[in-house]
Amino acid sequence: MHLMKGRTIGFVPTMGALHEGHLSLIKRAKMENDITVASIFVNPAQFGPTEDLEKYPRDIENDTIKLRRHEIDILLLPDRNLMYTNGFSTYINVDPLSEKLCGMFRPGHFKGVATVVAKLLNIVSPTRAYFGQKDFQQTVIIKRMVKDLNLGVDIVVCPTIREHDGLAMSSRNSYLDGEQRKAAPVLYRCLNKASDAIKSGIINTEQIKELMTKALSDKALITQIDYASVYHPETLEEIKEIKGEVLIAAAVRIGDTRLIDNMPVNL
Amino acid sequence: MHLMKGRTIGFVPTMGALHEGHLSLIKRAKMENDITVASIFVNPAQFGPTEDLEKYPRDIENDTIKLRRHEIDILLLPDRNLMYTNGFSTYINVDPLSEKLCGMFRPGHFKGVATVVAKLLNIVSPTRAYFGQKDFQQTVIIKRMVKDLNLGVDIVVCPTIREHDGLAMSSRNSYLDGEQRKAAPVLYRCLNKASDAIKSGIINTEQIKELMTKALSDKALITQIDYASVYHPETLEEIKEIKGEVLIAAAVRIGDTRLIDNMPVNL
Repeated sequence: MHLMKGRTIGFVPTMGALHEGHLSLIKRAKMENDITVASIFVNPAQFGPTEDLEKYPRDIENDTIKLRRHEIDILLLPDRNLMYTNGFSTYINVDPLSEKLCGMFRPGHFKGVATVVAKLLNIVSPTRAYFGQKDFQQTVIIKRMVKDLNLGVDIVVCPTIREHDGLAMSSRNSYLDGEQRKAAPVLYRCLNKASDAIKSGIINTEQIKELMTKALSDKALITQIDYASVYHPETLEEIKEIKGEVLIAAAVRIGDTRLIDNMPVNL
Repeated sequence: MHLMKGRTIGFVPTMGALHEGHLSLIKRAKMENDITVASIFVNPAQFGPTEDLEKYPRDIENDTIKLRRHEIDILLLPDRNLMYTNGFSTYINVDPLSEKLCGMFRPGHFKGVATVVAKLLNIVSPTRAYFGQKDFQQTVIIKRMVKDLNLGVDIVVCPTIREHDGLAMSSRNSYLDGEQRKAAPVLYRCLNKASDAIKSGIINTEQIKELMTKALSDKALITQIDYASVYHPETLEEIKEIKGEVLIAAAVRIGDTRLIDNMPVNL
């Protein structure tokens, strides 16, 4: 059913303010499919009432230039009132995955993500859809939803693209002022330290957590640590004793800006 | 996307124990589409813990004979463990529609219905899907879900098929013993009385409710009235003053058996 006259469709859903992370998804989609579709939609349903929906960066002019340069075939710019029509009342819950990690600090966020992704997948009917590893929890939830609801699309997760100092690319990095931007790579360094420690034989999560908290506390500009620990990469449960494939993940606040990052480790 | 080499697909999802109501859906689907698909799946997710999942009538042998006689093209018999795989955790909520009428007495029921219908629609990718008017609330919820999630299928609602004495056909009618079966048409008569009263000029819902309760109380075998009133046909809110299109609906228990029925009225 996912063929347009036998041609494969690669789909890259985004919220715009496109950076090299998004563009790596576009390149991959183009490489693997006959037709490439991107969407830009800042989805109100995934922002909490106190979150940054209104100030979320929007740059449709430059986004369009970038997408044209990458020669995508179709750009979808859904209208907010058409996506959420009068009387809209259907939401998709993927629990308990949605309540862990970021979900603890952003109640309702992944319900909004799952719902809009299902809508976009139904509109586009792609063969494959592309997501960045930076939003690891999102990819786990979407893969679970696609399987559970028989959405019949391959979810392709692509590596996190980083700035030269290791900061994971994110549209929200533009919120950081000069000093904050300089401090932000501490998140990536913290993940690396944890990864090195695990590989050197420390398999007790409590020790890794201590090490991560200490690394993040190096920078006074980190005003809050939402979480920083080691998780099962499928259930997203915090694990006690590290073995096999695990995920090191952390979320911090620098001023009002929330940054997340993660690193898979395979022992 | 909903064409198989340009051919239309009509889909009739059922829980089996097929009666003339189901077969009327099959006939309509055959008439309107190139390919007709039926499914039989007693969906555990839509039964509450104290409900009749285990005793729900199953008659796959006769069902198959009936479907063969009606010359459907494909019969889908999903396996419970494939529909709800290990770790299944995605559910679709259509609120507040799911909490009204039957939803008040069957918490979680419509979440299970919406979820399985979305799964089946994704598996079959039909052009049109057919449902009986008897389960009116179900049709309202499914239409809302299809619109909200961009499922891209036409939902066709077909008239309730009745026994000669007016009892709406239902697989659950087989639970009734001889005396109960004789009493059951009181539900249909009650809807008719309410409809006649509305058409004769009684537009106050309280008066109609009184009349319905009295009609149902005629039969001592009616052990409980879950609801019996007049509703808005889209929001399913109980209405105060009757005008335009309304829905008269009721649910009662005869012994352990729960029966529902409804009747639209257009003033």
